[in-house]
Formats: sequence, C-alpha cells, structure tokens
Amino acid sequence: MRILVTGGSGFIGRQAITVLLEAGIDDLHVVALTTLQDEFPTITWHRIDLLDPDARRDLIARLRPSHLLHLAWTTEPGRFWHDSRNVDWVAASIDLTQRFIDAGGRRLVAAGSCAEYSPTEARPCVEAETRRRPQTLYGIAKDAFQRVLAGYAPAAGLSHAWGRVFLLYGPHEPAQRLVPYVIQQLLAGELALCASGQPLRDFMHVRDVGAAFAALLLSEVEGAVNIASGRPLSLADMIRRIGRLLDQEALIRLGAQPDRSHEPQYLTADVGRLRDEVGFRPRYGLDDGLRATIAWWREDQAQTAPR
Amino acid sequence: MRILVTGGSGFIGRQAITVLLEAGIDDLHVVALTTLQDEFPTITWHRIDLLDPDARRDLIARLRPSHLLHLAWTTEPGRFWHDSRNVDWVAASIDLTQRFIDAGGRRLVAAGSCAEYSPTEARPCVEAETRRRPQTLYGIAKDAFQRVLAGYAPAAGLSHAWGRVFLLYGPHEPAQRLVPYVIQQLLAGELALCASGQPLRDFMHVRDVGAAFAALLLSEVEGAVNIASGRPLSLADMIRRIGRLLDQEALIRLGAQPDRSHEPQYLTADVGRLRDEVGFRPRYGLDDGLRATIAWWREDQAQTAPR
Repeated sequence: MRILVTGGSGFIGRQAITVLLEAGIDDLHVVALTTLQDEFPTITWHRIDLLDPDARRDLIARLRPSHLLHLAWTTEPGRFWHDSRNVDWVAASIDLTQRFIDAGGRRLVAAGSCAEYSPTEARPCVEAETRRRPQTLYGIAKDAFQRVLAGYAPAAGLSHAWGRVFLLYGPHEPAQRLVPYVIQQLLAGELALCASGQPLRDFMHVRDVGAAFAALLLSEVEGAVNIASGRPLSLADMIRRIGRLLDQEALIRLGAQPDRSHEPQYLTADVGRLRDEVGFRPRYGLDDGLRATIAWWREDQAQTAPR
Repeated sequence: MRILVTGGSGFIGRQAITVLLEAGIDDLHVVALTTLQDEFPTITWHRIDLLDPDARRDLIARLRPSHLLHLAWTTEPGRFWHDSRNVDWVAASIDLTQRFIDAGGRRLVAAGSCAEYSPTEARPCVEAETRRRPQTLYGIAKDAFQRVLAGYAPAAGLSHAWGRVFLLYGPHEPAQRLVPYVIQQLLAGELALCASGQPLRDFMHVRDVGAAFAALLLSEVEGAVNIASGRPLSLADMIRRIGRLLDQEALIRLGAQPDRSHEPQYLTADVGRLRDEVGFRPRYGLDDGLRATIAWWREDQAQTAPR
C-alpha cells in the first residue's frame, strides 16, 4: 500500500498524516505547496502545485500510489467561499482522479463539505437522503466533483469515499476564524464581538477529523460519509463554552456582529455511517478538545510574543 | 464579435455554423478534430484536440474570442452514455471556460442534455424546476459542468446559457441511431425491428437545433434553456410516421426488441424559455423534417451505392 496525501500540510492534512504514521503506514507520500519536512522527516514530501497539469501527471505517473487521500483545495479564509480557484480545483481533481486510475490507483478518498447540503429543514443531514443545494461556489464545486467521482468510480473499478466535513476546530486553525478569534480575544482579556450565535452546528476536533479520514481511507466504505461528531450545539453555546473554560464569559458579546443571513440555521450531521460502517469514534469530547486548543494557542502566543 | 465554435463539424455543430454564416457572422472560428474546410471555406478551421491542455490554452490565448459556443463532447454512439471520456470533458470544459474568461471572453453557450433530468413524473421538464437526477455518466458529467458554470459565471462577469438538447434527427446523424436505422431499413425494403416505442419524447430537426443554439448565442438569455420542439410524441408514433412517409408501414415491427428498462417513460420539454425569451420558433414541422431527412438518406445511399 502506497498512500499519497494531497494538502498534507493543511489544517486537516497534518492531522491525517500523523494518524497514518501512528497506524504504521511507512510508504507515505505527501504533496503540498508548503512542506513540513522538519516536523515529519520520515514522510516523502513533494512540493508541487497540483493546479499545474504537467506536474500533476508526472507526480502520479512516477509514484503510482495505490491509495489517494485528496484533501488539497482552495481554503483561504474569507475568500474560499467564492474564490474562482474552486473551479480550477474541480478540473484539477477530476484530472488527478483520471491519472490516478490510469496509474493503477485502487482507492480514493476526498474531502467534501457540509456546504454541499444547505438544508431547509431542522434535521441532521443524511448522506444519501438530504437534498444538496449548495449556496456558495465552494459548495457547488465540491458537489460537482463528488457527482462526477461517484458517477465514474464504479465503472472505472475505483473504490472511493467522500468525507463531508462539518465544522472543526483545533491547533493550526487560521487565526481569523471563529474559535481562534474567541480564544485569542479572551486570552488577551479583550471583548469577543460575535453574531447572535443562534445557528446550530456540529463541531469536531481537527485531530478526530484527520483520524476519521485516515480510517475512511483504510476502510472499504463506499460513497459519501459525514465527518462530524454527531453532537449538535449552537454557535453561542460553543462560544460560551470557551468563555467558561477560560473563566472569561463576561468578555463575550453575542449579537454584537450581524448574522450572515445566507447561512442555514440548522446544519448538523447524521453520523450513522461514520460510526457504524467506518467504525470510527471521536477521541475528543468538546471540553477536552477546546482545552487542548486553548493550550495550543497559549503556547503559540508564548512563542510569538513579544510582537 | 469573434465567435469560436467547438465541435463545429459534429451533428449539431455543422448546422449551427451554417446558421451563423447565414446570420452574417464573418469572424467565425471552429475547432474540431475533423474539419470541414471544403464545405465551409470562409470559416477559419482549427484542427485541435480540446482534451490537450496546452493546445486548448494556446488556442484561446491566440484567438481571444468574445463568444464561445461549446458543443464538443464525447458523442460516440452507443458508447457515450458511460464513456470515461465524459469525465475528461468536464475537466477540459471547466478549464476551457477559465481560459476563455481570462482572455476576455464575454458570452459562453454550451450544450447540455435532457439526460440531466430523468423525470419521475409525466409532465414536461421545466429548466429551473424539474429536479435533475441523471442516470448515466454522460448526464452526470453534463450536469456537473452546468452546476460549476452556473455557480461561477455571474461572479466572473461571464454571460452564459446552457442549451438542454432533447431528441433530434436529420442529415448526418450516425447511422446506427433510431431514425436513421428505420429510414435505412425501409428504404432497403427490409424489416425495422424496434422496441415497444411507448416512451414519450420530443424530437427536433437538427437544423432547428443548430439554429436554436445560434439564436441562444446571439441572445442575452441567461441559464438553462430547453432546446426542443415542444411537441411530444411516442417513439412508436415517430417510427410509424417514417413508415407512412415511405409507404412502408408494414415493414415496422414494434416490440421486436426489448425496451431499455432504465430509460424514463416520459422525457419531454417545456419550451417556454426558448419560445418567449430567446424568441425562437422551429422551422421544420415533423413531416417536413422527416421528408428532408429521408431525401438526405436516399441521396447518401445513391452516392455510396453500389457497395
């Protein structure tokens, strides 16, 4: 088994490769724009832009991986929802899949998103049942690639799964996103200005997300699988929980920012497939996960201060 | 206005370029694997494989068309429903769109298909209402490209339309398809062995299909538009009509072949958008269209006989 991970230095990717190493995978290759050679010296890193067709084809033809964990995509915070690079990633991912099959690839697992769903009803999303009606270019692009992959894989003899990631948090999350923002403000003793926080969401610690992808890759489960904790809570509850853990609830201002009107009120996951078919159970409870995340940010602040 | 037509030597393409020439378009470029230089000497032909990324990019960068009519796709009769090249065409079409936008392209019209729908109810398909549930890789791939295009075009400043073609017939149709098969058998005085012919369909003469695409390209209508006659009839009625025109009804054997169980019983079009928004009216009635098609096959037989 030779595994190639794309986007392996990303938020989810670095956790997935850690778990794959812990699982004893030794023929592990990672392609990324920014490599983490010092942190993961036993992995073979390939610094390649997957949007370059020639580089992509050369890499696959040379490595001939049996398994492909495709996490790379455009992810720049704030921009990625409507970034035209989403469109490039659909074309590049389809081509990558074709090259992988041509080179004898056997199983492909790729990262999807809860943004493919946008449910209109207040019930958990079920992979094969909930109608997909993505509201962003990111969701549209992920959904389109999934449709092509699912339509194509069986006839091509390719085993495949599609992990639909819900919300996540943990070390190395981009600083401007919600959980890091609240943690940083409260650690600094400053106000955390938030929206109403009414929408219901599903948060999973990024290590569990990475581990779920590793488990999915090493399983034989086919098709879409929600990657989520199965424990919905409101954004306000999530924010208040951080406040409690830091004993700084008084610094939280819910309703100080406008709500994003286009976002669904209810976006939570049925995790039956992940739990019963993949056999995956998350390791982190929410408080444990948040404590570990807060510890990481404390350490990060300590390392980078004084600024 | 500089127009680039892909697949311009194909069944629909050759009709579309004829109509564009008749409309006085003089800066007309066509890319195709098989060029029709002798038949259309005033057009600039480019013999290029659009699945080759470098050739594709070079062509667009060099021509910088303002309008793109994208008809090229995998179309090999019998094979195209599940051909893996459908997947290549999604990636190539997305990339072509990106290159077109980068080079200042203003309006793109592409060929979709009624295979994107597969309706479960006995009512005409309405572009924005009928749920799409494609049952073939061809339908899945067309649908995926349409989703990306529609999700992307507005933000990219690209005007676009998507012509969903229903059934069509006319000169140059591949000989193994239904209408040519029946015409050829009856012209030869041989039995036409057909399925039950119960499914209801919408047939449009290919010249009208080509003209509808030309009209759509020159219009400002946005989004999906059914390209169809709006006059549903059963396959059996279509076959019998050929029999009547050739005075050979006795040679028709309905039910002599098994029905294709996966095909929808009812696949017809609401043509409100094409008629009222594009302002297009078909030129051919069914009998006129069939007479012209029969005449073309007679001529074709006369030219190629004796075999």
